[in-house]
Formats: sequence, structure tokens, C-alpha cells
Amino acid sequence: MIGRLNHVAIAVPDLAAAADQYRETLGANVGAPQDEPDHGVTVIFIELPNTKIELLYPLGDNSPIKGFLEKNPSGGIHHICYEVDDIDASARKLTDKGARVLGDGKPKIGAHGKPVLFLHPKDFNGTLIELEQV
Amino acid sequence: MIGRLNHVAIAVPDLAAAADQYRETLGANVGAPQDEPDHGVTVIFIELPNTKIELLYPLGDNSPIKGFLEKNPSGGIHHICYEVDDIDASARKLTDKGARVLGDGKPKIGAHGKPVLFLHPKDFNGTLIELEQV
Repeated sequence: MIGRLNHVAIAVPDLAAAADQYRETLGANVGAPQDEPDHGVTVIFIELPNTKIELLYPLGDNSPIKGFLEKNPSGGIHHICYEVDDIDASARKLTDKGARVLGDGKPKIGAHGKPVLFLHPKDFNGTLIELEQV
Repeated sequence: MIGRLNHVAIAVPDLAAAADQYRETLGANVGAPQDEPDHGVTVIFIELPNTKIELLYPLGDNSPIKGFLEKNPSGGIHHICYEVDDIDASARKLTDKGARVLGDGKPKIGAHGKPVLFLHPKDFNGTLIELEQV
């Protein structure tokens, strides 16, 4: 079912500082900040040759990563995203196997305009997994 | 400096269960367990089309991930590994920029037989970063 690793998302306490660090200290190809008000985040993508790092910073009062940064003030890896061909079939198979899809269990349109779902970290080794249909 | 994302390492509380889950529930290509006694871990690689997931389980009494699993009993993402061409040049550049290389600051031979170093998570958004020379 899962295909490529689409991205690793890292929540950061200072977006400009994190972008500078990846650009200057780690020598990576760092994009411009993009506000995603519907998802409560500002993101910066770092393009690696085989995948992406997504830096996440809270936007607005109801950001889903605000609580994460309160618990992890230095920041931390927030989730990893695997690509799938068919998000509805993936959701059915996962729930049949007893895995919990977050929210109402149905795929939503994610921050990249594609259908996504998130799996409960307690069911997957403490790892928040996003599945994105590509 | 950094190139491909070589792997994402996930510490897991039950290696066989995690392998079964990635194989059966997530439909991934899961390898056989490999003991790495010099590094205090048993690892299983999951081959994705563009990178790898490395499942980590403690081996022996001095495993470097034992404390991590005590703090995170469900497991969690332990580190991410970026590839570099020249580990010694990378170490010099990083320490010149004020980043802390764990241990004595010198690259070591890692679990895959290649020179590696680890960067202090507090300097990198709460993320433990491994650099591996390929």
C-alpha cells in the first residue's frame, strides 16, 4: 500500500532561524514560506534529491501544532507522510485492520491540495503517519 | 552539504509486531532483523521506493535507545539521516558554525559500516540528525 516517503515534517519554534540553518549550515535547497491558513500552519519546504523536509510553524490561534510546540519547545519531528495510490481503499483497509484514522475516519483535502488522512500515533509506534494520495 | 535522506529511524517497543504491521497493514517491503551488537540495536529495514525506514529495538544492556523507549513507551521517531559526500569536511563546517557534534566531535563508523556523526538535537529544532558519508 505505502509508496514513497513524501516528506518528513518538523515543527520548529523559529521558522526563519530554521530555514537559515538548513540553507547556511546544512547547505540545503530551502524554499519560501507559504501560509496555509486553512490548516493553521506556515510551511517551508526543503527539497532533498529524493524527498522533502517540511518545516512547520503555527499560524493563527487554532494551529494543530501549537500544543506540540508547547510540549516540545525546541521543536521536533511532527509526522512522516507516505504516498498511496488510493486513499479511500487505504482508509478501508486500515480501519478493517483496527487502525484508527484521526478525525471522523474519512480522508480530507490536505495542505498540498491532495486527499490525506492521519493515523493514530499510538497504533503506529508513537509515530504520527500521514497518508497522501498522489 | 546534505544530500539524500538516507533513512528515518523509528524506535519500537515490539520489533516483530512493528515489522508485521508495516508488512501486513501498510503493505511495505520489510527486511529481516539484523543484530548490531557493537551499536546496541537490532534493526529491520523497510525499503520504500525512494528511501528507507529503519526500525530500532534495543540489544544488550547499554543500548543507546533504551532510555528513549523508557521515555516514549509507545516508541517514536528517533532520528533522521542525511547523506553527505565528505564527513570530515561536514564536521569541520558544522563545528565552525557552532553546531555540536555528539561524543568527541569526530566521525565514527556507524551501524551500516560507513562514517557517521550525530548532531545535538537542541541545535537542530529538537531533531536528532545523523550524517552518513556515502
